[in-house]
Amino acid sequence: MHQVLKETVYEMNRALVEEGLVLETWGNASAADRSENVVAIKPSGVQYDDLTADSIVVVDFEGRVVSGELSPSVDTPAHLALYRAFHGINAVIHTHSHHATAFAQARRPIPCFGTTHADYFHGEIPLVAAPSHEEVVENYEHHIGDRIVRHFSGKDPLVCPAALTAGHAPFVWGRSPAEALENAVVLEEVARMALHTLAVNPAAAPLEDYLLNKHFFRKHGKDAYYGQR
Amino acid sequence: MHQVLKETVYEMNRALVEEGLVLETWGNASAADRSENVVAIKPSGVQYDDLTADSIVVVDFEGRVVSGELSPSVDTPAHLALYRAFHGINAVIHTHSHHATAFAQARRPIPCFGTTHADYFHGEIPLVAAPSHEEVVENYEHHIGDRIVRHFSGKDPLVCPAALTAGHAPFVWGRSPAEALENAVVLEEVARMALHTLAVNPAAAPLEDYLLNKHFFRKHGKDAYYGQR
Amino acid sequence: MHQVLKETVYEMNRALVEEGLVLETWGNASAADRSENVVAIKPSGVQYDDLTADSIVVVDFEGRVVSGELSPSVDTPAHLALYRAFHGINAVIHTHSHHATAFAQARRPIPCFGTTHADYFHGEIPLVAAPSHEEVVENYEHHIGDRIVRHFSGKDPLVCPAALTAGHAPFVWGRSPAEALENAVVLEEVARMALHTLAVNPAAAPLEDYLLNKHFFRKHGKDAYYGQR
Amino acid sequence: MHQVLKETVYEMNRALVEEGLVLETWGNASAADRSENVVAIKPSGVQYDDLTADSIVVVDFEGRVVSGELSPSVDTPAHLALYRAFHGINAVIHTHSHHATAFAQARRPIPCFGTTHADYFHGEIPLVAAPSHEEVVENYEHHIGDRIVRHFSGKDPLVCPAALTAGHAPFVWGRSPAEALENAVVLEEVARMALHTLAVNPAAAPLEDYLLNKHFFRKHGKDAYYGQR
Repeated sequence: MHQVLKETVYEMNRALVEEGLVLETWGNASAADRSENVVAIKPSGVQYDDLTADSIVVVDFEGRVVSGELSPSVDTPAHLALYRAFHGINAVIHTHSHHATAFAQARRPIPCFGTTHADYFHGEIPLVAAPSHEEVVENYEHHIGDRIVRHFSGKDPLVCPAALTAGHAPFVWGRSPAEALENAVVLEEVARMALHTLAVNPAAAPLEDYLLNKHFFRKHGKDAYYGQR
Repeated sequence: MHQVLKETVYEMNRALVEEGLVLETWGNASAADRSENVVAIKPSGVQYDDLTADSIVVVDFEGRVVSGELSPSVDTPAHLALYRAFHGINAVIHTHSHHATAFAQARRPIPCFGTTHADYFHGEIPLVAAPSHEEVVENYEHHIGDRIVRHFSGKDPLVCPAALTAGHAPFVWGRSPAEALENAVVLEEVARMALHTLAVNPAAAPLEDYLLNKHFFRKHGKDAYYGQR
Repeated sequence: MHQVLKETVYEMNRALVEEGLVLETWGNASAADRSENVVAIKPSGVQYDDLTADSIVVVDFEGRVVSGELSPSVDTPAHLALYRAFHGINAVIHTHSHHATAFAQARRPIPCFGTTHADYFHGEIPLVAAPSHEEVVENYEHHIGDRIVRHFSGKDPLVCPAALTAGHAPFVWGRSPAEALENAVVLEEVARMALHTLAVNPAAAPLEDYLLNKHFFRKHGKDAYYGQR
Repeated sequence: MHQVLKETVYEMNRALVEEGLVLETWGNASAADRSENVVAIKPSGVQYDDLTADSIVVVDFEGRVVSGELSPSVDTPAHLALYRAFHGINAVIHTHSHHATAFAQARRPIPCFGTTHADYFHGEIPLVAAPSHEEVVENYEHHIGDRIVRHFSGKDPLVCPAALTAGHAPFVWGRSPAEALENAVVLEEVARMALHTLAVNPAAAPLEDYLLNKHFFRKHGKDAYYGQR
């Protein structure tokens, strides 16, 4: 059941290892099948080397297990909060990728210092507050996602498909598994570039708006001309 | 004699190379068989490529060689001090892993800046003083371990299974060889993340206690719910 | 048609991946055949793994496609501006290589801090302004190249075969594909060395002129004595 | 002629690549056969991939070619100055290894911040002035070596077998090729650790003398007890 979705999510999780975005059992990738109202996600605490497509867990949008023998990632409620609120997304990736996590721990958003960033994210990667003590007691992992959802209230989450949870790590999303994965890889490189930009010039200024717009919209939207038609 | 223990310790030491935690002949891993009152440890100054299970040295808890043709690591007395005092541990790893050593040399503990750290270590990784001049003359390597033991007096060493010796490098331990190895890998990544957190924000604050507790105790202890049951 | 040139440019682009200078679809390498008045360049937005010699696009010096089924890199007008103005160059490489891009984003030229730099580039790697808002509207990518050309007005572009576009990334060139590729690799290492030089000493001074001249001219020009005759 | 020496020097130079200490054609390793009064060294400007044992050049202690078809490294006079003055050394390595070069460019010696450094080098790695303008005109490469020799006047060069030439890069030596190679690898790691130590604590203090002595002399000299007897 949901075999194709499980295979896809298995490949996404394996790609996190190959791209150097995860260590140990950290991180998790999921994908949604909106026609079936299900989400497939990595099982909790399983080593990436032990992962198989069959070990992927399928849950409904409320988190009830639909298929799979194992417990889903403890971060499942965070993923589900994003899927329920961001209707245009079909894949979510959470990692502790090194440099993006350093910004989350430093509690600074990642400024858009250049065109590499602007090609993928329209403006700074936001820092979203961690859940409050009360929210942790109630349902920690749900509120991680809900805090992100509230941050994007009234904004298009596909114009900046990533956020940093303060003191924790990044969440990234996309229209498709491939897009979410590319965003996760680029977020990590953009964070590392921003860290080194600040090392060279602690007073570095963000990219001018007209360059930000030029780069983002030559790759995204109806007037895009980057790539093949 | 003690063949299984020697194989285990051989594999632990080889894993230090594969995980990128050691260069040259630096570092050493040991494991205890408490039913036999013995500890197996890397021989002194041997290249990791030349290591075999048979070259591993077995000593009793006072450091007398029980099995093996080679001299044990010069750091053996430090390992033994930890085994004698910390009854719940069965494996010890000493490395000069790059970023953890940078903190030891900088003489700063590693603050708990985020959930990656909190998942493994409950609070900052302590900086323990190096042996005094008198202690160096008497028995340097014993006092390295003894200083760590005294630091943890009245504390549970498994709640924070690592320490930095000032001007030197980290020591890490665990209930099992696998746990000690995971702690050594994570310590290095946590140290590197802390260094980059400080690079982004020199005034970065530690993680709030309620988040530290949430993360540590969702993975450890009787109320843990991370992973498979 | 232009099969040898396409093969050469295919190999150049593949080398960018092998040298760790590009991620995703970023960057592009081109080479000119001045006897035929054509330039071959990477197609736009194609993954490096999907690249073949046949997919390379050949354009004339005004950017009209001469051979190839795909759209050329969006950065083609920048390459062409360099070829038209710098008559001694036959290859151009644009990357977002990590540390050179950090300097571009920090809006600082790369000072010549040592002999490694002086062996390849006679003095600092200049920071060239990004196109203005008006230039972006008119023809962004042409003006990226034109800004570099104007910066080198009255100077020999082969004495310092690289420039950083502010907020963007480096452009590098050479007499031949091999020379441009070596310059691109060295620029990235020189940028990384400069960043770490500033980390060790934020007030580091540039290399003395007599040492800069000694190193550059023992490798370049009529009195060179580095290498085999 | 001198086939064994050529093989040794070929292997040393190949090891520089494998250890990540060199890029392009940078760096060079040599070894002396003092019974024959000859030194074998890398030929100038040859790519490491093209190197063969037969391409290694043998010179006498005045730099006259004794065997080999190619021109020796331009740095040969610097190596020879070291061999003539430091009678206990039989191998010299010059690299532009990344972090050691950053200290040379920053014009700071590498402080001995910890035991990793103290195990190999008794105190800070000195920064030696570059040749003066007059010395450059007279014989640049000879004076690079001569400046190092003069710095060590009255000191034992085997107690600190490395030096940084200001604005340039490190030179390292040893009793044997294996020792020089180990020193070159460790110097680079020690430089990288020192850089990160300063990043964590810009006011970091050097290791106390009694710990420096303990570590250096437990590995070196008549009272050493590190390693196998």
